[in-house]
Amino acid sequence: MIKRGFASDNNAGIHPDILEAIAKVNDGHMVGYGGDPVTETAIDRFKQEFGADIEVFFVFNGTGANVLSLASLTQSFNSVLCADTAHIQVDECGAPEKFTGCKLIPVKSEQGKIRPDELKKHLHGFDFEHHAQPGVVSISQVTELGTIYSIEEIKAITTLAHQYGLWVHMDGARIANAAAALDLPFRSFTRDAGVDVLSFGGTKNGMMMGEAVIFFHPEQARFTKYIRKQSMQLFSKMRFVSAQFLAYFENDLWKKNALHANKMALLLEQEVANIKGIKLTQKTQANGVFAIIPPSIIEPLQAQYFFYIWDESRSEVRWMTSFDTTEEDIFGFIKALKDLL
Amino acid sequence: MIKRGFASDNNAGIHPDILEAIAKVNDGHMVGYGGDPVTETAIDRFKQEFGADIEVFFVFNGTGANVLSLASLTQSFNSVLCADTAHIQVDECGAPEKFTGCKLIPVKSEQGKIRPDELKKHLHGFDFEHHAQPGVVSISQVTELGTIYSIEEIKAITTLAHQYGLWVHMDGARIANAAAALDLPFRSFTRDAGVDVLSFGGTKNGMMMGEAVIFFHPEQARFTKYIRKQSMQLFSKMRFVSAQFLAYFENDLWKKNALHANKMALLLEQEVANIKGIKLTQKTQANGVFAIIPPSIIEPLQAQYFFYIWDESRSEVRWMTSFDTTEEDIFGFIKALKDLL
Amino acid sequence: MIKRGFASDNNAGIHPDILEAIAKVNDGHMVGYGGDPVTETAIDRFKQEFGADIEVFFVFNGTGANVLSLASLTQSFNSVLCADTAHIQVDECGAPEKFTGCKLIPVKSEQGKIRPDELKKHLHGFDFEHHAQPGVVSISQVTELGTIYSIEEIKAITTLAHQYGLWVHMDGARIANAAAALDLPFRSFTRDAGVDVLSFGGTKNGMMMGEAVIFFHPEQARFTKYIRKQSMQLFSKMRFVSAQFLAYFENDLWKKNALHANKMALLLEQEVANIKGIKLTQKTQANGVFAIIPPSIIEPLQAQYFFYIWDESRSEVRWMTSFDTTEEDIFGFIKALKDLL
Amino acid sequence: MIKRGFASDNNAGIHPDILEAIAKVNDGHMVGYGGDPVTETAIDRFKQEFGADIEVFFVFNGTGANVLSLASLTQSFNSVLCADTAHIQVDECGAPEKFTGCKLIPVKSEQGKIRPDELKKHLHGFDFEHHAQPGVVSISQVTELGTIYSIEEIKAITTLAHQYGLWVHMDGARIANAAAALDLPFRSFTRDAGVDVLSFGGTKNGMMMGEAVIFFHPEQARFTKYIRKQSMQLFSKMRFVSAQFLAYFENDLWKKNALHANKMALLLEQEVANIKGIKLTQKTQANGVFAIIPPSIIEPLQAQYFFYIWDESRSEVRWMTSFDTTEEDIFGFIKALKDLL
Repeated sequence: MIKRGFASDNNAGIHPDILEAIAKVNDGHMVGYGGDPVTETAIDRFKQEFGADIEVFFVFNGTGANVLSLASLTQSFNSVLCADTAHIQVDECGAPEKFTGCKLIPVKSEQGKIRPDELKKHLHGFDFEHHAQPGVVSISQVTELGTIYSIEEIKAITTLAHQYGLWVHMDGARIANAAAALDLPFRSFTRDAGVDVLSFGGTKNGMMMGEAVIFFHPEQARFTKYIRKQSMQLFSKMRFVSAQFLAYFENDLWKKNALHANKMALLLEQEVANIKGIKLTQKTQANGVFAIIPPSIIEPLQAQYFFYIWDESRSEVRWMTSFDTTEEDIFGFIKALKDLL
Repeated sequence: MIKRGFASDNNAGIHPDILEAIAKVNDGHMVGYGGDPVTETAIDRFKQEFGADIEVFFVFNGTGANVLSLASLTQSFNSVLCADTAHIQVDECGAPEKFTGCKLIPVKSEQGKIRPDELKKHLHGFDFEHHAQPGVVSISQVTELGTIYSIEEIKAITTLAHQYGLWVHMDGARIANAAAALDLPFRSFTRDAGVDVLSFGGTKNGMMMGEAVIFFHPEQARFTKYIRKQSMQLFSKMRFVSAQFLAYFENDLWKKNALHANKMALLLEQEVANIKGIKLTQKTQANGVFAIIPPSIIEPLQAQYFFYIWDESRSEVRWMTSFDTTEEDIFGFIKALKDLL
Repeated sequence: MIKRGFASDNNAGIHPDILEAIAKVNDGHMVGYGGDPVTETAIDRFKQEFGADIEVFFVFNGTGANVLSLASLTQSFNSVLCADTAHIQVDECGAPEKFTGCKLIPVKSEQGKIRPDELKKHLHGFDFEHHAQPGVVSISQVTELGTIYSIEEIKAITTLAHQYGLWVHMDGARIANAAAALDLPFRSFTRDAGVDVLSFGGTKNGMMMGEAVIFFHPEQARFTKYIRKQSMQLFSKMRFVSAQFLAYFENDLWKKNALHANKMALLLEQEVANIKGIKLTQKTQANGVFAIIPPSIIEPLQAQYFFYIWDESRSEVRWMTSFDTTEEDIFGFIKALKDLL
Repeated sequence: MIKRGFASDNNAGIHPDILEAIAKVNDGHMVGYGGDPVTETAIDRFKQEFGADIEVFFVFNGTGANVLSLASLTQSFNSVLCADTAHIQVDECGAPEKFTGCKLIPVKSEQGKIRPDELKKHLHGFDFEHHAQPGVVSISQVTELGTIYSIEEIKAITTLAHQYGLWVHMDGARIANAAAALDLPFRSFTRDAGVDVLSFGGTKNGMMMGEAVIFFHPEQARFTKYIRKQSMQLFSKMRFVSAQFLAYFENDLWKKNALHANKMALLLEQEVANIKGIKLTQKTQANGVFAIIPPSIIEPLQAQYFFYIWDESRSEVRWMTSFDTTEEDIFGFIKALKDLL
């Protein structure tokens, strides 16, 4: 048995139900590239969740989902406004710029969230040809700092964006953790809160791989099938992603997984809060715990339970829980931490 | 049980051994993005095949492998010369141009193969800034017409290309079928024949997904890890591709699968050759059979066994066999064909 | 006095009237980037020529004009169909691919012209996501081989293109030579013949620099101002291009220049036709003469009158005349040629 | 006579000596695209200024110069760090991202200048494939706020950048104003201060158009000629830019022009400083004056002397002087300003 750590929810494997679902559709031949009945059913499942008048495209990974979303919404002279901590800004090696040609504009964020007043500072230069035309606001739910936007916070951003003619994209790589924490249906804080396009993630919550891009205005997706192919995100044996999504929704597996991961993070936060010499830096709302710990213990602790440094300059680390984190993992980690301090 | 057809080898599912291999590594946490021991082992396996001094990068799909190869070899002012029937030219929706910025130059081909004399016609304009600088020759093995280059044919191209300072890329989406048909080790007709970079396919021969890009000159791959990420081809749970490749090499599964698919295609060819009113258009060397059939029977035949039209203007169709094609499939198909004629 | 050669019409300098026009608007300050009254007047002049409901954008050079045209008409998953001899295909170092992301598809041409039957072979794969979607046909008038499309030939192409939903672009780097040779107004063989967007050249016919992109459907140009800026083609002191265009139209200077260049080419053709050992390869219709000459005399002849080799493999050369070519130049050249033979 | 305003130094026309130089080389035919003797001489002139071992490329405009510089220094997975007020960040409609594929990272600036401590915050993530690799620092001299870096300030940046393996680019659209103000040779605060590549501007200081990209390490420019063509910046009648640069250096015309413009700006600053109700926001070091003025007088003042609003939110305006600004212009403007207050 290989030990579980706290490096990332994508260091976990595949939930058994998901793996079984892959095996179950592994029968005979099916038309490739999404023309199969499993994919049709999976898309219908998304329509139950978000409404019948949506367009859904499955892709390989989160960066692919974000780029496909942005490319469908923009032309190259547009700019994309996002939190200065956004995955598309700091963790995708410039994929959005390369593929869309757009300028990304980092907006000063607080705890991973964009606030309307900071966003507004960048909403100018419209119709001025020297200025990249603001085209999309992208927000992450859960944010990269483990925090969650409330419906009201999202509406404040979408309302402002729409006033200025911008679209709103949500990077939902951890959307399940948000829905579970908020105890709200996906639709309530996406489509119903004014979000126009959603990257709906599965990989970080128990799937092997696979993300969905969901367009709430079908006209935005008129050309998306070409863009998906041109962006190298079209999976030939698509049924094997589609089947994963079906299992993910079956019996609310997504929710069970996410609730558990969130609960484990809260347990970790609670245990850590009592330890002197450790300072929590974010309120834990989903499945991430951020803390400042003594630099000297980072390496020995990583050797026992792997995790990543978040901000070396202030010795801040990030601990992520996942669907398969156990209470024993948490207590073992706490013990290791205490032993080192 | 869903019927098998002859549409494409990627309409087949996952070989049971491959699926089992995925399950076997689904244990505990592993560092993401390729930093795991399964990936390390899989890369070592490729080194056994091609030499220790290679660089190997796993990606999601064939288009991704081709684009990553070309992007690593070129700058945007280069051109890429390929057969006018090449997958990168006709089936990737412009992904190579979009991502590399390069011009693709279709070279007149015969039975899917480039010949040196036709290639040479495009080897001019060097050092002339108005002309996209020829940078790479890309050939497909197996070709898109189901034919196979001999070692000598490959050497003729690589020698010419190298004389002019071009790199040679091989699109090996069906490289296993070629190796099986030639009864040669992979290395003999790739690296040892002068190929510089190889897209090594797995999906079309029994894997769920996953391709490898193999660089025979490590200096070409200096920046490939960044390009892979920026081209949205970096898989977070990489172990699940790596495990597939390990199973693929285990007990020569790749060969068993490919030999079988090739054998089924030969059987199909042989059976079809005897049918009046059908004209074979390519010599079957791997797992594809190309034939001209009466336009009127295409649709009813597709309804029983799905396949694709190759060239509508002359009623040419393509029938692909795969690792799971059975003799019963072939005879059932032949019967259906005869009934319709 | 520096000798005139036959290398290219852009080896000539500036027509004195054009230079004077630059000097005449060199007074005081004017708003930059086209917001000046000279530019307004110049655009109006184009509207007189092509109709009031057009959109006009001035750019620096021909490649810039072509790329701005194509970028305004396409998305990156489109393909652009052009003659295999087209400037955008062979002489722009891949600028169209790099900037638009589109695939360029060379269509087999005759004497520099695309014929509808060859074009039609490439009009397939619509709605098929693996295939770059045919978006634009681009033709050159005058062609790169010095030939000229008749109105009927243009209409045959635009009709076919429009049937399939493609736009038609004309690369009019030498459009004045065509209009002069055809003795037709510009509009008759562009807009009225179904062309949708036109690169209108000035540099090769006596201007210092400057080309215009003319959109016959204003909705195509909705975002062109941003694309012009992003493609580095927005001139700050725009009045100095606009003034050139005004002088170019004044007293039909464009026509005088083009008629003269064409006449000189015809004289050259006529004189060459009588020389044994030289074979004309194209009928001279504008200001270019193409001929096969003995390889041994190329270099000594170039030393006296510079010109370019067109096709080294068959010793074909290109001789271009320009607005300032004199009869003495022609006869001097003929003498040099005869002396060398 | 058209009135002069204070909108931009590119609203001025062409200095008479420059225009005369264009006329002087307008004789006979010369090889296009820079193969002419005038261009050779002009490049030599730059070598006198910066050293014999440089590479020089002329382009059309400032955006073209910046993009050509950055494209020569980067691969698409790099990032470019620049002041948040930099022209490449806010005034080029995303041209650098579109053409290079790189991410631009705005660094918090003070009075238009980057400081090493702010720069350092962005120098991390090296070798980490998820992070766009810091590749170039770009600084503007004169800055977009009219301020000038001292040699020491430049050296502090280039030293830090080089420590981390980054190149340094200088956007010298107004480099003449900087050299004149510093009373230093160009070389001292560029090459000798560690700058690697320089956009050397001419348009804003009396040229009609034309900028030079100067590489201080020839190996960086190995492919620049192709990139220039592919970026649509290759001028066919190059002699007409080259002649302008020759005249620009002749008798230190560049210096005369720049000194004058700077002097006029200082005069304007001095006069404005005495006016109650106006607040200067930057120390005037070159040819720009920045001030907060009552919003109500902006429009009526613009009607008399055109200028641009810099920051609407605080009613800050920018007044630029140029080589042809006269004392009468200044006093007329001051009078208009006082009348309105």
